[in-house]
Amino acid sequence: MSTTTPTARVFSSDNTAGASPEIVDAVTRAAAGQAQPYGADSVTADVRRRMSEIFERDVDVLLVSTGSAANALSLAALTPPWGSVLCHRDSHINNDECGAPEFYTAGAKLVPLGGDDAKIDPGELRAAVRHKAGDVHSVEPSVVSLTQATETGAVYTLDELHTLGPIAKEAGLRLHMDGARFAGAVAALGRTPAELTWRAGVDLLSFGATKNGTMTADAIVVFDRSLTAELSFRAKRAGQLASKMRFHAAQLDAYLTDDLWLRNAAHANAMAARLQEGLKAIPEVGLLGAADANLLFCRMPQQVIDGLLADGYVFYHDRWEPGVVRFVTSFATTERDVDGLIHAVGHHAAWTGSP
Amino acid sequence: MSTTTPTARVFSSDNTAGASPEIVDAVTRAAAGQAQPYGADSVTADVRRRMSEIFERDVDVLLVSTGSAANALSLAALTPPWGSVLCHRDSHINNDECGAPEFYTAGAKLVPLGGDDAKIDPGELRAAVRHKAGDVHSVEPSVVSLTQATETGAVYTLDELHTLGPIAKEAGLRLHMDGARFAGAVAALGRTPAELTWRAGVDLLSFGATKNGTMTADAIVVFDRSLTAELSFRAKRAGQLASKMRFHAAQLDAYLTDDLWLRNAAHANAMAARLQEGLKAIPEVGLLGAADANLLFCRMPQQVIDGLLADGYVFYHDRWEPGVVRFVTSFATTERDVDGLIHAVGHHAAWTGSP
Amino acid sequence: MSTTTPTARVFSSDNTAGASPEIVDAVTRAAAGQAQPYGADSVTADVRRRMSEIFERDVDVLLVSTGSAANALSLAALTPPWGSVLCHRDSHINNDECGAPEFYTAGAKLVPLGGDDAKIDPGELRAAVRHKAGDVHSVEPSVVSLTQATETGAVYTLDELHTLGPIAKEAGLRLHMDGARFAGAVAALGRTPAELTWRAGVDLLSFGATKNGTMTADAIVVFDRSLTAELSFRAKRAGQLASKMRFHAAQLDAYLTDDLWLRNAAHANAMAARLQEGLKAIPEVGLLGAADANLLFCRMPQQVIDGLLADGYVFYHDRWEPGVVRFVTSFATTERDVDGLIHAVGHHAAWTGSP
Amino acid sequence: MSTTTPTARVFSSDNTAGASPEIVDAVTRAAAGQAQPYGADSVTADVRRRMSEIFERDVDVLLVSTGSAANALSLAALTPPWGSVLCHRDSHINNDECGAPEFYTAGAKLVPLGGDDAKIDPGELRAAVRHKAGDVHSVEPSVVSLTQATETGAVYTLDELHTLGPIAKEAGLRLHMDGARFAGAVAALGRTPAELTWRAGVDLLSFGATKNGTMTADAIVVFDRSLTAELSFRAKRAGQLASKMRFHAAQLDAYLTDDLWLRNAAHANAMAARLQEGLKAIPEVGLLGAADANLLFCRMPQQVIDGLLADGYVFYHDRWEPGVVRFVTSFATTERDVDGLIHAVGHHAAWTGSP
Repeated sequence: MSTTTPTARVFSSDNTAGASPEIVDAVTRAAAGQAQPYGADSVTADVRRRMSEIFERDVDVLLVSTGSAANALSLAALTPPWGSVLCHRDSHINNDECGAPEFYTAGAKLVPLGGDDAKIDPGELRAAVRHKAGDVHSVEPSVVSLTQATETGAVYTLDELHTLGPIAKEAGLRLHMDGARFAGAVAALGRTPAELTWRAGVDLLSFGATKNGTMTADAIVVFDRSLTAELSFRAKRAGQLASKMRFHAAQLDAYLTDDLWLRNAAHANAMAARLQEGLKAIPEVGLLGAADANLLFCRMPQQVIDGLLADGYVFYHDRWEPGVVRFVTSFATTERDVDGLIHAVGHHAAWTGSP
Repeated sequence: MSTTTPTARVFSSDNTAGASPEIVDAVTRAAAGQAQPYGADSVTADVRRRMSEIFERDVDVLLVSTGSAANALSLAALTPPWGSVLCHRDSHINNDECGAPEFYTAGAKLVPLGGDDAKIDPGELRAAVRHKAGDVHSVEPSVVSLTQATETGAVYTLDELHTLGPIAKEAGLRLHMDGARFAGAVAALGRTPAELTWRAGVDLLSFGATKNGTMTADAIVVFDRSLTAELSFRAKRAGQLASKMRFHAAQLDAYLTDDLWLRNAAHANAMAARLQEGLKAIPEVGLLGAADANLLFCRMPQQVIDGLLADGYVFYHDRWEPGVVRFVTSFATTERDVDGLIHAVGHHAAWTGSP
Repeated sequence: MSTTTPTARVFSSDNTAGASPEIVDAVTRAAAGQAQPYGADSVTADVRRRMSEIFERDVDVLLVSTGSAANALSLAALTPPWGSVLCHRDSHINNDECGAPEFYTAGAKLVPLGGDDAKIDPGELRAAVRHKAGDVHSVEPSVVSLTQATETGAVYTLDELHTLGPIAKEAGLRLHMDGARFAGAVAALGRTPAELTWRAGVDLLSFGATKNGTMTADAIVVFDRSLTAELSFRAKRAGQLASKMRFHAAQLDAYLTDDLWLRNAAHANAMAARLQEGLKAIPEVGLLGAADANLLFCRMPQQVIDGLLADGYVFYHDRWEPGVVRFVTSFATTERDVDGLIHAVGHHAAWTGSP
Repeated sequence: MSTTTPTARVFSSDNTAGASPEIVDAVTRAAAGQAQPYGADSVTADVRRRMSEIFERDVDVLLVSTGSAANALSLAALTPPWGSVLCHRDSHINNDECGAPEFYTAGAKLVPLGGDDAKIDPGELRAAVRHKAGDVHSVEPSVVSLTQATETGAVYTLDELHTLGPIAKEAGLRLHMDGARFAGAVAALGRTPAELTWRAGVDLLSFGATKNGTMTADAIVVFDRSLTAELSFRAKRAGQLASKMRFHAAQLDAYLTDDLWLRNAAHANAMAARLQEGLKAIPEVGLLGAADANLLFCRMPQQVIDGLLADGYVFYHDRWEPGVVRFVTSFATTERDVDGLIHAVGHHAAWTGSP
């Protein structure tokens, strides 16, 4: 896949897409003139104002360059080094960040929990929040991290959040949400951002943007503003305080303007739903798990996989059980791209269907 | 200073400027189409190729979002946690990164050394590289970090580098260069990048770009490529592996194309020289130290300072001794801006000159 | 349990015992006269010489104040911060050290594996040593830690060690042995210390002594002596380089003299075997798992547990499933103590036996 | 110097001495019977009670194996990783612990200050506590560490403590005292332990014992008891929670009984004073600095130094300027030892005295 591969056949991830035109325009505008460095500029202030409107309360915002930085900084502010982070065993923080949480927290321990669709099981959480609490021989349960939407494309419902949040809070733990695909979850659920976060007890939200239209900017939304000073020192110390912060801010500002973030997410979700609908009609394909957002897992014959690869399709297929593939759509995926993929699957399946 | 303040009166830092048009164009182009994430794209490969040409040998390149990240990652790869980093007492790593080097190195110690113009004194370095070496009660001298150009705008000459480098290397220490303003140093010295780095023993270079025309992208240039794998893990773990790396790469690629990096730096240097020349003619102003690159320190009567501030000029004036001010030029500074400042200083000085 | 509770009814742990008379004498002797500090004394040298004889090769030795320090220091020398430590899910390093390994390693990740009797299953290890190796998004498999004897009192046989060791080594991982109860394993297996460690690929051994007769001194035995310098810096930095090291050394020296370490361990094992034999005859008691060393797990009716507690017996009984208890013997346990316990169990069981 | 070198000619440090007979007896007694592990034993409770009496308020106590561990743990509880520790440039934490404070604090920065006799100068402290406070680009001044007695054997007077303490406290910083030689300071000043610590604002005291009569046990005295839980987790995680804690406790208990700690210290101080008095009479010897406790610095001709070394005397002489030597006395030094040294110095000086 070269840099300018057309989008048509890339379903490997939402991080292969470029940036929304509105984002590009905002960055271009930000390139002119002088601005205060390190977030003292007016666009950064605008982002904070917009976030406060969206979340219906005063929030603080830190702009960072990656989702891993957003997660790791947040967790470091929510657990001491001798604490534990309760998370789903399939979560990004547990598997895909090369120990960034352990690095930023100075050695806290991630405790993996189970649950369907990469959602934490309430029963397991209930046991874990009390496990050896106060015992100096063991790490201290300190923070719960929920991924919304999950690694498998499911979303926690409002009810689920309002079950899990209180389990954490009543045991004295803090609550973090990894919202790398938060926009997709909001779009899928039709609930307000406030309901899905601080009203369920979330203290810090990793507000993902890069997978959904920005270039290199994500955010931490701070609901517990007593954490802001600490986060600011930690961010600087982590090399995450950009001198020309306005370029991060411009991306987020455009992203939040006129609901671009929700429109992009809704489009990506719709493309996944269209794909799901199309594949459902092909008997050789078995859909797996909930596909509430923009990720879709399914099982298909090896010949179909081979056929798609031969066609130039790009997607993950060798990471789970044999025959399981993942398709990811994004704001940049078109209906035509999806229809092309459905057609290709059908074509290859026809040759492999049972007689 | 609002986001769109005209450049005319901002001399506080080179990080208040925006981005070069070539950089903006490159980012815009990168926004289209799909690309492999995490640096597997073709533009990132181009950057490595260009860097190898510029430095006249095969180098590896890591793209990061800030200069602090470049410095801290580099130092972490060059010293164990029980090591010390020998640096100038006025260096950025020692004063202005909120302990990022200590964080990334897991607690190494910065040992501040003296020397004029923020350049490390060879005699002090010679003593420090052997200080308690091998003594388990003390941190172990492990790496020397040189800032080129220095915090005060001076540059190490080739001779100076070829004096200091061997002092480090013969004692078994590694050599890091903080090149946040490396382009300015190259432009000032008229020597090749190779001569100024690995030929003087530099193992890792923080190759600054943000202060000189890019938006949010700096680089680590790896001369000792045995360090690349470690740096890659460390970068991921630090939240510095951008998923849409092509946006960092596009900035650096344009920055290195057709010598934009050197043209921008030469311009910034020329503006500082023009300013120096102009201020020299005003007897109430005393120039301080070497101003080889784009920073200029001088001493002036309080009334001049007050007058400039009243005019809307933006610059640092209260960080050192009373009456000492710093002016910084950038790629975006114009001759007219400089002439305006000189005229304003002369104007205010006339009212305060000794009879 | 007061400080001077007679040993008779304490079966909670081998760390409630005092110290062997030979150890007390050695410490008393060490208190006279002057000695070089920080391990430059002659007794520390003697310990190294004795260890080299016992392990049939030149080894280096670091004396530390706890087993947790021995483990954490060892692991820190065997994995980079971005590495993972493969260990049994029930291991002490994973559950009972409050994240000491994570602290000392600057945030490495412990990966818990399964297996019967708290021994790592070879199949699971084989998969884990290659899991995402070289993938920058994931921690890098770096070291395997085996606990000998295990947390449940089982011991790895020579065959098992020579299966597991090569799995680690052939994949490029290092091998650590947590030998908090190493003496018990040697005594149980009748194999040489060399066979059970470096001949099976062990790089560093946490050589436990405190549970088996010393007061406050354990050791790291260094087979890969290229690690000694790093370990020495790390130990000092961790506050583990005792100034009056001779007091640690005196304990270890006496411990190694005339096979005291093996005699103590053999005695503790024999007491556990005697207890096992006695309990086997009581039908209401179900023995659980292998009891090769000095720990014994069994299942008994709640009334027996309550009866023992009422008698003043001290033991763990509420940490696993209901009805499961753990008895631990030590060098200080007497036959009479064991017989008393067997009798008490029999007595309480008689009242609860099925009709 | 062999392990059983007679004390007569060893003046290199107070850590070459053995242990007081009362300490040896206490350890011997502790070796019998069973005791609760991890500090739940009755002797550890006794130590806390005695400390509370001595300091005239309820304190918590952590027993650790080295003074470096006491210092590093204390500092870690008093500064965040992005904080700075203000200390004298000659302090032990800054020079002699191989970065233990940096390790335990996860990378805080030690800021070295000047002042005579290794005491922090109030003027320098006053500037440092406000230096860049609240500036996210810089480490945050967080804790002041005073060494009592200092590295050169001087002691802070009550007035000095009550000047420095408030400077720290009024600026919002915490106060740590490195009392590796605290007993010597108390003995020298004739003030109460309370006056010299918490009444001057000290939050945590590293209460040294090893240099003054114990074997391998030092303590942290916790005045701000809100820090106890954190310290407990940190100590466990650092490998500093001894399983057979009673052996540490027995040492401290005996040390605090019948004022042994003060008697030992008074003796060591008296021996240093006797030495000082004797050397004063030798014109070739120049006494340097205040010698309030048990360390004495002086300048003497090289021939005297060479003569003493030839006689078998052990002392430091090559660490500072040429001709400067340090003599340290301890609880174990006798009048006869001192007189022998004075005589030897006089003897060698006679051969080198100016005519």
